[in-house]
Amino acid sequence: MPAAFDLAGWSRNHLDRVERALGQWVGEGAPAGLGEAMRYAVLDGGKRLRPLLVLAAYEAVHNGAGPTGSDTALRAGMDEATLRAGMDEAALRAGMDEAALRAACAVELIHAYSLVHDDMPCMDNDVLRRGKPTVHVQFGEAQALLAGDALQAFAFELLTPDDARIPPAVQATLCRQLARAAGSAGMAGGQAIDLASVGLALTQEQLRQMHRLKTGALLQASVMMGAACGGAGATAQKALEGYGAALGLAFQVVDDILDVVADSATLGKTAGKDAASDKPTYVSLLGLAPAQAHAQELLAQAQAALAASGLADTRALAALADMVVNRSY
Amino acid sequence: MPAAFDLAGWSRNHLDRVERALGQWVGEGAPAGLGEAMRYAVLDGGKRLRPLLVLAAYEAVHNGAGPTGSDTALRAGMDEATLRAGMDEAALRAGMDEAALRAACAVELIHAYSLVHDDMPCMDNDVLRRGKPTVHVQFGEAQALLAGDALQAFAFELLTPDDARIPPAVQATLCRQLARAAGSAGMAGGQAIDLASVGLALTQEQLRQMHRLKTGALLQASVMMGAACGGAGATAQKALEGYGAALGLAFQVVDDILDVVADSATLGKTAGKDAASDKPTYVSLLGLAPAQAHAQELLAQAQAALAASGLADTRALAALADMVVNRSY
Repeated sequence: MPAAFDLAGWSRNHLDRVERALGQWVGEGAPAGLGEAMRYAVLDGGKRLRPLLVLAAYEAVHNGAGPTGSDTALRAGMDEATLRAGMDEAALRAGMDEAALRAACAVELIHAYSLVHDDMPCMDNDVLRRGKPTVHVQFGEAQALLAGDALQAFAFELLTPDDARIPPAVQATLCRQLARAAGSAGMAGGQAIDLASVGLALTQEQLRQMHRLKTGALLQASVMMGAACGGAGATAQKALEGYGAALGLAFQVVDDILDVVADSATLGKTAGKDAASDKPTYVSLLGLAPAQAHAQELLAQAQAALAASGLADTRALAALADMVVNRSY
Repeated sequence: MPAAFDLAGWSRNHLDRVERALGQWVGEGAPAGLGEAMRYAVLDGGKRLRPLLVLAAYEAVHNGAGPTGSDTALRAGMDEATLRAGMDEAALRAGMDEAALRAACAVELIHAYSLVHDDMPCMDNDVLRRGKPTVHVQFGEAQALLAGDALQAFAFELLTPDDARIPPAVQATLCRQLARAAGSAGMAGGQAIDLASVGLALTQEQLRQMHRLKTGALLQASVMMGAACGGAGATAQKALEGYGAALGLAFQVVDDILDVVADSATLGKTAGKDAASDKPTYVSLLGLAPAQAHAQELLAQAQAALAASGLADTRALAALADMVVNRSY
């Protein structure tokens, strides 16, 4: 029987790199006030679930098939020009590691910008986030609006460095995945449905569709962007899509549950908001215990998808899914 | 002596394609309310200067060196994998035409989103744009915020289609150029400087820097994205950068002039706003006549850059610069 996977230790190692990279990159070259607001929105906060999903998927694929298979997968992600440029193995690997790190930061930037805009008075009008005043409270609404806009642009800038070690095909794929997940058929679209659904009685299918876009698309894209950096084959891709979809939905079901059962201090944001604002949730639709059971079903689906992936080591992905469903904040 | 260039006819032909493409693409697959707001923000309005710059630069480069040179330039933009995939000349050309059209639409989406957010109450609080109620007046602030966000994401989605005719290297380059121009070291950064400068006495250099970011970066990127689709060589690239920089600055100088000399009906937006909001402008800094002279100097710089480009036919680019400086709205 394998030793229990140390998710905390694994996360700490990986988040060290992510935090350092974000700290170095975010707001660099921005006018002072804007850069400060961007850094405030991104640094020192959040569970960093999305970056961890990128890196866990990257590693699972990258190391997935042993040294030979891994090499093949790695080279499959390269275009021919890169290969013929005579880059050695170490440079190729460094390039893909760098691509995965950039993807991890990019998904977090999109998430962070969405929170900044979502907290604004014209949206959720929230004053507390991650235990701190929200960006518009701290910097004013105009700066918050611009900081969110600039963070979105910066996500795509991070994905397209002038770095020959990261093949253009990988850069283009990452942009495509992120743009679709962030836009009107993804996160922004889900927020629009959310806006329009306040006070309405949604069916479970409508609620699922809203959350599939609003939070699910970016969570799933995080997994798939990591997979793209690792050069995933078709079987692994399909399995990871299933994993990402189940995890994305589970995340929201648990969010709805926590909004009811946790307090604001634990959550680092205002609890009980959904009921107060008459938003449809899994708890209001299903009841608390069935919602909890549904979250466990989705966790089982995510784990089953990993088992079908053909990847040798999916322990980090499995542990992240478990953490998402069984978290208390 | 060559016949006078028919800018109106040239623009009409090219804008037909752009309008059709935007009409087909924008808001597709978005939830109803969001899609409607996105389309309202983008369709049936605007001079479409940025798309025209993309297409004019693309054509100037693409047709620039005669059939043989053009073929070389075209193939230089292809990666080897694409070439070896055995695509014929017609498919290659169709791919680059499509890339240029997508770039033309993408820069307009970034411009449109910036107007939506800029008009919001927490920014300029403007109610009239292109002769119509602004997006937040028509659809509410929350929907306007989301529509702007979704339009930005969609710009990057448009640049990264799953279309083998457009080489990944071109897709990645276009995303890089657009992200930099839109973000904190470009448009969003310029808007932040603008925000912070209300009521301050800026030097001409500070004013130039603000506008170089706020409007110049995206105008210049439009030119360079067209050049990238055409596979511009180093000389042409450098010349077009100079052209784009001069044109970008001229655009803002003329905007400042028109804010003083034109009326709201002609502009399709509220005139006299700069003075009313105590914003520093070229007119407030230099005076009206010197600002007008400065615009003409910048026009001459733009034309000189075209002359140094080595490109055979830059008439559309020249006519666009002339139009920018000598427009009345």
